[in-house]
Amino acid sequence: MAKIAVLGHGVVGSGTVEVLLKSKQSLEKKAGQELEVKYILDLRDFPDSPYKDKFVKNFDVILNDPEVKVVVEVIGGINPSYEYVKSSLLAGKSVVTSNKELVAVKGAELLKIAHENNVNFFFEASVGGGIPIIRPLHQCLSADKIIGIAGILNGTTNYILTKMIRDNMAFGDALAIAQKLGYAERDPSADIEGADACRKICILASLAFGKHVYPESVHTEGITKVTAEDVEYCENFGGSIKLIGWAQRQDNGKIAIMVCPAFIREESQLAGVNDVFNAILVCGDTTGDVVFYGKGAGKLPTASAVVADVVIAAKLNSSSNTLYWEDSENQDFVEKKENIVCGHYIRLSGVTKAQAEQVFGSVKYLVRANAPEGEIAFTTEPISEKECADKLEQLGGELMGNIRILDY
Amino acid sequence: MAKIAVLGHGVVGSGTVEVLLKSKQSLEKKAGQELEVKYILDLRDFPDSPYKDKFVKNFDVILNDPEVKVVVEVIGGINPSYEYVKSSLLAGKSVVTSNKELVAVKGAELLKIAHENNVNFFFEASVGGGIPIIRPLHQCLSADKIIGIAGILNGTTNYILTKMIRDNMAFGDALAIAQKLGYAERDPSADIEGADACRKICILASLAFGKHVYPESVHTEGITKVTAEDVEYCENFGGSIKLIGWAQRQDNGKIAIMVCPAFIREESQLAGVNDVFNAILVCGDTTGDVVFYGKGAGKLPTASAVVADVVIAAKLNSSSNTLYWEDSENQDFVEKKENIVCGHYIRLSGVTKAQAEQVFGSVKYLVRANAPEGEIAFTTEPISEKECADKLEQLGGELMGNIRILDY
Repeated sequence: MAKIAVLGHGVVGSGTVEVLLKSKQSLEKKAGQELEVKYILDLRDFPDSPYKDKFVKNFDVILNDPEVKVVVEVIGGINPSYEYVKSSLLAGKSVVTSNKELVAVKGAELLKIAHENNVNFFFEASVGGGIPIIRPLHQCLSADKIIGIAGILNGTTNYILTKMIRDNMAFGDALAIAQKLGYAERDPSADIEGADACRKICILASLAFGKHVYPESVHTEGITKVTAEDVEYCENFGGSIKLIGWAQRQDNGKIAIMVCPAFIREESQLAGVNDVFNAILVCGDTTGDVVFYGKGAGKLPTASAVVADVVIAAKLNSSSNTLYWEDSENQDFVEKKENIVCGHYIRLSGVTKAQAEQVFGSVKYLVRANAPEGEIAFTTEPISEKECADKLEQLGGELMGNIRILDY
Repeated sequence: MAKIAVLGHGVVGSGTVEVLLKSKQSLEKKAGQELEVKYILDLRDFPDSPYKDKFVKNFDVILNDPEVKVVVEVIGGINPSYEYVKSSLLAGKSVVTSNKELVAVKGAELLKIAHENNVNFFFEASVGGGIPIIRPLHQCLSADKIIGIAGILNGTTNYILTKMIRDNMAFGDALAIAQKLGYAERDPSADIEGADACRKICILASLAFGKHVYPESVHTEGITKVTAEDVEYCENFGGSIKLIGWAQRQDNGKIAIMVCPAFIREESQLAGVNDVFNAILVCGDTTGDVVFYGKGAGKLPTASAVVADVVIAAKLNSSSNTLYWEDSENQDFVEKKENIVCGHYIRLSGVTKAQAEQVFGSVKYLVRANAPEGEIAFTTEPISEKECADKLEQLGGELMGNIRILDY
């Protein structure tokens, strides 16, 4: 018998309890033992909940109950999640979380504590919602040296970009629809400014490359500057704009990592990923490209990933010590933004083609119907961020669009 | 220290040894111990091999060596693989295989023997080559009730269909190119007649639904009857033809399962899977659709999956008893072919539209440029196989194409 405590009774928390009860029989068969939700921690009252006798408001009740084997943390954020998770692990309880912020900021430390206490810290649901990615990456691709990862990691922004592309809509209008449908929050900044995708690519990069990449080491751009005009130029160029979190092993041994709107060619397996769906492409040195696709968020998909982790945590009686990465205060293994190289799509006005060619050398011009007089758009050869910025300054004119071109 | 024996030194076998040696250090870190290839079994001589001192011709040397913890079976076929695998498991050695025929025909029995002997029988590489699918399906989606699975499971046929679609080529010409490029074998029947895809969907269905589905229970059609004309009609209808292995939980509790060329609409995540790539769509009741994409065959991708299994098998000291399905001589849980329901694309000549409508009721006509006089093509509403066959017989005329329409 494994007793479980669920911290937080919001969307994912209530979904987790629902899935644990709905599929109790088949889950117990898979876990090889009974699974019982003993406590649900929430500061709010749920007098009408069918599980009302399980609610507690004081975390210490859970911490001090030696019967609790697995703690599920689905509160989100760092406080008080971090303290709850840390003390649970120190008390010899395994922890399952969907909290990407916690893993991105405290992952290395919490994994270390878990291993020192011979328990597990699992977080399949923290990236890609219901899409299996953490376990496949660390178990199934363990014979590969990971070369690169690129993902559509945020469903809200992918929905907005899909609306902009399909319906030729401006960013603000698409955001308003996403908010109306509940795909974007009232304060959408964590999604549209890229912070959510940043946390997820940090988790994937840390796992793939073995060293903790912290969010503040990652240059992060959201989609607020993407315009309908950029979308149109990129479609005519044979692809579409997606918000991509990507990390790439470089020849110099460093990791280039960034979150940015990017041009993705039509043939890419990431190009056809639309609406709120997510997809993660992993390139291994022996397996080549592998892509994982599905619903990146939502109550039940995320709860499904949490519960699958709970089943494994309940079964294990020791630490699964391969799920691990080193902490690293020194982030020198992360390539400086200015040195990261890729092609750029550039849209500007107030300069001539001759001037653009003089500064950027060989460029390829893009077209769109009814472009105003004086607007030019072109793609560059791969150049470093610094070189691109320097050349744009030298060129002058009014910069209206700058989208990186990625080859995934 | 875990000592390993590799049975077979063909494409996958030599790749497995290569990956084990190339990535020795990182694999040993993941396995938590040294990994050593002690034996390679092959009847042929490899006098110039760098591993020539490891070769043996007598399986008993391996079987009787208590130091061998993991046996890798990459010979293929049933004989002598089945005997080798069975006796290894009985001797307390874990087995890793890429042999889909063996798993599809003997999986339930071998899993049972593995669990009785507290060892493991792993086969990630048997489906989808380097694509993680077996472990994600049984671990990460364990909280889901699987509703359906549909996959492009054979790279050779997908390459041929891609050539037919892109270059408007006839089947025979596309097959000849595939053979020239080494994508199709000289005797391509196991691929083009669907037997290979059938074995793989049997393995996936057995794992997803918990009961062994045997290949002979599955109606299997290959792609030899698909014509350039069918391809053209289907493109105009907004999709493409793929060889799909699929299994679906029905309302009556039975499993509908089939391998057949199928119309897949453009928006499906399976539609953009081209050339030798594979993709597997899994639909779970809580997670929804999840898709796994990558190289479904090839020396190194397959070897990578084998080696990842070896690492886990080396680490475990007991049976991972959730990877399991029941044997079932009685295949009554598999829906009879005649009762399986789906829409059909039908192309025929010698009948009028009025006659077609009289027999099939509401149909939707398809068009292609330069269709000869008297040819008609249409799609039906979902009907059972029996109903479709009966109606075609009643209608008469010359049937030239009949492709099932799947909604994945």
